[in-house]
Amino acid sequence: MALLEPSKYSQGSVLGGVNPDLASERQTASFSVEKLTAWLDGGEENTRTRRAVVEAIERDPVFSRENEYFQSQNERYEAAVRKAVHLQKKMHEMGWTETGPEFKYIYRAVSGDIAFLLHRIFIRSISMLGSDKQIAKWIPLATQHKLIGSYAQTELGHGTYLQGLETTAVFDITTQEFILNTPKISAMKWWPGDMGRSATHTVVFAQLYTNGQCYSVHPFIVQIRSLRDHSLCPGITAGDIGPKMNFEHIDNGYLMLQNVRVPRENMLSRFCEVQPDGTYVRQGSQKINYFTMTTVRISLISDEVIMPLMKACTIAIRYSAVRRQSKLKPGEQEAKILDYQTQQEKLLPQLAAAYAFHFINDYLQELFNRGYREIQKKNFETLPELHAFSSGFKAMVTQYSTSAVQICLQACGGHGYSSLSGLPSLYTKIIASCIYEGENTILLLQTARFLIKCFRAASTGQPVPPSVTYLAAVKPGKCPAKNKLEFLSPNIYTEAYQHMAARLVSSAAAKLQDLIQSGVKKHDAWNQCTVQLAQAAKAHCHYITVKNFAETVEKLKTEAGIQRIMKHLCDLFALHGIFSNAGVFLHDGYISGAQMDMITASYLDLLAVIRNTCFSDMNVIHLLLRKDAVPLVDAFDFTDKSLNSALGSYDGQVYQRLYEWAQKSPTNKQMSPAYERYLKPLLHNTQSKL
Amino acid sequence: MALLEPSKYSQGSVLGGVNPDLASERQTASFSVEKLTAWLDGGEENTRTRRAVVEAIERDPVFSRENEYFQSQNERYEAAVRKAVHLQKKMHEMGWTETGPEFKYIYRAVSGDIAFLLHRIFIRSISMLGSDKQIAKWIPLATQHKLIGSYAQTELGHGTYLQGLETTAVFDITTQEFILNTPKISAMKWWPGDMGRSATHTVVFAQLYTNGQCYSVHPFIVQIRSLRDHSLCPGITAGDIGPKMNFEHIDNGYLMLQNVRVPRENMLSRFCEVQPDGTYVRQGSQKINYFTMTTVRISLISDEVIMPLMKACTIAIRYSAVRRQSKLKPGEQEAKILDYQTQQEKLLPQLAAAYAFHFINDYLQELFNRGYREIQKKNFETLPELHAFSSGFKAMVTQYSTSAVQICLQACGGHGYSSLSGLPSLYTKIIASCIYEGENTILLLQTARFLIKCFRAASTGQPVPPSVTYLAAVKPGKCPAKNKLEFLSPNIYTEAYQHMAARLVSSAAAKLQDLIQSGVKKHDAWNQCTVQLAQAAKAHCHYITVKNFAETVEKLKTEAGIQRIMKHLCDLFALHGIFSNAGVFLHDGYISGAQMDMITASYLDLLAVIRNTCFSDMNVIHLLLRKDAVPLVDAFDFTDKSLNSALGSYDGQVYQRLYEWAQKSPTNKQMSPAYERYLKPLLHNTQSKL
Repeated sequence: MALLEPSKYSQGSVLGGVNPDLASERQTASFSVEKLTAWLDGGEENTRTRRAVVEAIERDPVFSRENEYFQSQNERYEAAVRKAVHLQKKMHEMGWTETGPEFKYIYRAVSGDIAFLLHRIFIRSISMLGSDKQIAKWIPLATQHKLIGSYAQTELGHGTYLQGLETTAVFDITTQEFILNTPKISAMKWWPGDMGRSATHTVVFAQLYTNGQCYSVHPFIVQIRSLRDHSLCPGITAGDIGPKMNFEHIDNGYLMLQNVRVPRENMLSRFCEVQPDGTYVRQGSQKINYFTMTTVRISLISDEVIMPLMKACTIAIRYSAVRRQSKLKPGEQEAKILDYQTQQEKLLPQLAAAYAFHFINDYLQELFNRGYREIQKKNFETLPELHAFSSGFKAMVTQYSTSAVQICLQACGGHGYSSLSGLPSLYTKIIASCIYEGENTILLLQTARFLIKCFRAASTGQPVPPSVTYLAAVKPGKCPAKNKLEFLSPNIYTEAYQHMAARLVSSAAAKLQDLIQSGVKKHDAWNQCTVQLAQAAKAHCHYITVKNFAETVEKLKTEAGIQRIMKHLCDLFALHGIFSNAGVFLHDGYISGAQMDMITASYLDLLAVIRNTCFSDMNVIHLLLRKDAVPLVDAFDFTDKSLNSALGSYDGQVYQRLYEWAQKSPTNKQMSPAYERYLKPLLHNTQSKL
Repeated sequence: MALLEPSKYSQGSVLGGVNPDLASERQTASFSVEKLTAWLDGGEENTRTRRAVVEAIERDPVFSRENEYFQSQNERYEAAVRKAVHLQKKMHEMGWTETGPEFKYIYRAVSGDIAFLLHRIFIRSISMLGSDKQIAKWIPLATQHKLIGSYAQTELGHGTYLQGLETTAVFDITTQEFILNTPKISAMKWWPGDMGRSATHTVVFAQLYTNGQCYSVHPFIVQIRSLRDHSLCPGITAGDIGPKMNFEHIDNGYLMLQNVRVPRENMLSRFCEVQPDGTYVRQGSQKINYFTMTTVRISLISDEVIMPLMKACTIAIRYSAVRRQSKLKPGEQEAKILDYQTQQEKLLPQLAAAYAFHFINDYLQELFNRGYREIQKKNFETLPELHAFSSGFKAMVTQYSTSAVQICLQACGGHGYSSLSGLPSLYTKIIASCIYEGENTILLLQTARFLIKCFRAASTGQPVPPSVTYLAAVKPGKCPAKNKLEFLSPNIYTEAYQHMAARLVSSAAAKLQDLIQSGVKKHDAWNQCTVQLAQAAKAHCHYITVKNFAETVEKLKTEAGIQRIMKHLCDLFALHGIFSNAGVFLHDGYISGAQMDMITASYLDLLAVIRNTCFSDMNVIHLLLRKDAVPLVDAFDFTDKSLNSALGSYDGQVYQRLYEWAQKSPTNKQMSPAYERYLKPLLHNTQSKL
């Protein structure tokens, strides 16, 4: 038994090479990782730019995340502010601009922990809702950081239902000012980021009163802190809302207003205005406001949802190739846990989902760019579809990815539960995405409302957007596949998803109709159908995701190796979805029990090395997914610093790294005062009478 | 618009009354909350004892949890040690003993944050595995706290698979000592609680070598810290493993051993011994070791799983009766979110599960007490069944409850994400239960192995334990129910669960058999069936839980009101399970698509106030579950201090409490240094060149 000197354990030097168990996984890749990375980035040029940005940021010690897992809420906030301020300098130094190609990679490079994101929403809301004059006044102040902005919409008692906001803004003709008030505690602004401690200004959403009448919610620019010494302005009560599950680096804040006066010019007035005599004038279309929320929902999917999911997959899959536990065969070495079917079944579907969502994100971006061009031409026709898409996909992708990250965390056993694995912080971050920017159930019901409308239109022959024409074609039928191999045909499974989604929409519509015809009031009938409506909306999004994945693979002709592995991931994503939601496919007999057995067999074959198949071709193909698992996460191209995980680093030296990182913990810095205070008296029996 | 003085918001005095929205929920209870509480406790006497313990603990400021959400890992550890030491004093003062009726309520009263739990496992392992002489020496030292013990089994590279442990203990005849070593980094002990900073001694599990031969893993008592000054003993490297998702109050530790010598007498030797000449002697049965792990798994279900689930339900349901959002009917006040079908469908099934698991816990306790009596009579026959039950139910109940708490958290929207809601800490605590004391997938597969064995035995007419005789009766069939009301019959749904579980076990057994007959090696065949085997084991536990719930309700004749509401919860738990796992019920046609529609209708009816039913009796019954939701959580009888939740307190003053608690956060204690350092230079444009 050779002994390692304990001192050696703690030195970076033993982290020299790549763990052979991980190195071997990379030698058998069926495709070029570098080419897959470039394709995911949208071209080699983008990969180069991204890597340059990441390198510049990671080389700079101010952006270090080394001690993040040991920091208090105060420390994380201070670090986030320091990084945000330093980033301005860095961008200047590097020649990066907000419109340059580097900009979109900065957030990924910084890995999230940065302040002033709400300052950007402050700027965006003034740009979209402000008059030209307001833009000319406020935007330069904001971009030059002569103020720090925030966005105060949510209240303690009011979230998604904006009409319910209780903050008031009463126009006072005599002074030409609005008087803002928080009439009761539930009206207090609560949650706005950057507002608890940083912001000097914020956009407050309040019920507008003028000439004794209420004109619903409007945005007002309000200064909350002194530009001189940062003290709170008169009439302002504000602070930090305290600890959260994550986002401790953000000063989510509260705000109460007591007779706070702002000049008439501070109501954002591109679309609505109060004139000096108190007359309320609405001009132009307010529909564009939806579009802002819509774009925010879509833009968060990539950075806040798909990135954490890809990171979690990277960590869990690399660790599963290094971790050995129990024996798969008697007499052999302990097996890599990735060789167990149950571990494959946990992780590989999540990897497939990460790719599926990357592609659906591309699809949504394109849809929105096209929609935006139309809107710029004052054609608002696509707005309902875009709104339905952004709502449904935001809900579906965030919920799915949250479960996926949880599975990755649990699949790493005890070490996944250590903060040093990086997984707890990814999980507690991603679960927030299910709640913010619209609660998921409410969003799914908005999508459902659109689908029901389209279904009714389609049924009566009226035109509907291309994405939902399939709703017209609901009819009983049976899946034609006859053996397990046929279920690897994208036509077969895409059809099955389409049939299932259409059936769920049509049966929810029928139930709704029945209830109304039987005399139930419309709103009661709607409420009684909402569980099924939400299910139908999710099914629609799932169908579109599968269809888009299959089409993406189909189009990918240039790279045979990559196309082949993407095809397997697409099959896995689709069959996993059928296996996990078997009920909705079996319900009307479209898929029979016997076919479900074929699907299960095909699905399980996809996961693993299958030794007993008669199809030698298939054998080779089946080898790929398990064998390519590590190369497939390597292609996401996360640096060790961005993963910040003792389990997920490229070199797979997980045990040494866990040990080294643990030693940096403040819990190991000195003997705890608990010894002198409590343990010593207990052990020496000198404490006051037991 | 009346203005509240901001100063008023912050005073406890405004928290006087109960929020009318919550008070009204309690006026319509269909049963006596107090009687239900007493029944859950197992009698009024127990309720009185429990309340007395809780009151004594909560009245004592040392046990306060007031600032827990603001504390660092170091602070939480120190508080946990302080509480553990103080508890000794308290118990003496109150006259509570370890065998008295109060003892089992102490942990609930302290609400978890307490040190020295592993000290208890140290004592337990010596009591069970030590010789009489060892017990006589060590137990008094431990119970008098002349040492603090821990239990060092898990290693950095080895968890559930104990045979793989790498720590070594080599017997040295010349000195009559064992020499303990950590031969490589993956052999380092990692995770043991109380070991990182507190323990002076620990039980180390190591591979025993004597006379040049390895005799597998055995336990050794090792001193790791000086009893004089707490410094590490020679050859010992130890410390804290750093931050985790929760359990920050516990000093989970690491330990390396370098030529650490302990006398021959320190190997626990009730069953195995090394004699002075190095001869290894095994005596008696080692099977009893399984039983220790088995009892630990069962005992954690109540305190570590069902309690957090009940707390999460209490918080989410009370909050949902207070939170108003959007309008259910045009022109009305905003509705309580508990009146939305989607919210009911999120929360009420979790409430039903909390009750279901409370009852299955009673069932398991009784089963184990009976088993223990047999074992004391040296009858080990029931061990395999007990082991299978403890494994499967630990896995099923922890996984189900983890999802349930996550649903409760998300159902509270943004405020659920605030630490002050209490839900994040409940979630991060309960998810650990899926990992510790045996990883869930491995546990399910152990249950599956038992089920397959029993299925084969039953198929060939051999005797099997009563709990699995149903496996003999697998045959095709159809559910006889003809309308949605018939699905409220326990016989109907219990039969359906039984059929489904038996089918899954038999089809996994058939697949296993087919693979082996087609030439696949046994271990490969097993691996290829594990996804389905785990599913079958879960289905078995789900079936037993439903059956036990139905039988518990059936037996409950004395209290009509309580029996009625329990019957609804049982129906809800059962139908929710069918609705959510429709595929396995539809698969072989036992339930048809049309019947699934009836089940769905019955299930959704159960949730809510149904206005449009023709059955006036049913109407009354349906009113109950939604209407009784708050009384049903009140019956769990948690004090506000034990919930430690701004959302879940008995008085429902959620907004005031969130605001008051936030103000206590260290983030509001003073102006952040970030202002002087970063914000001021930025705003005043005095920072070094932008």
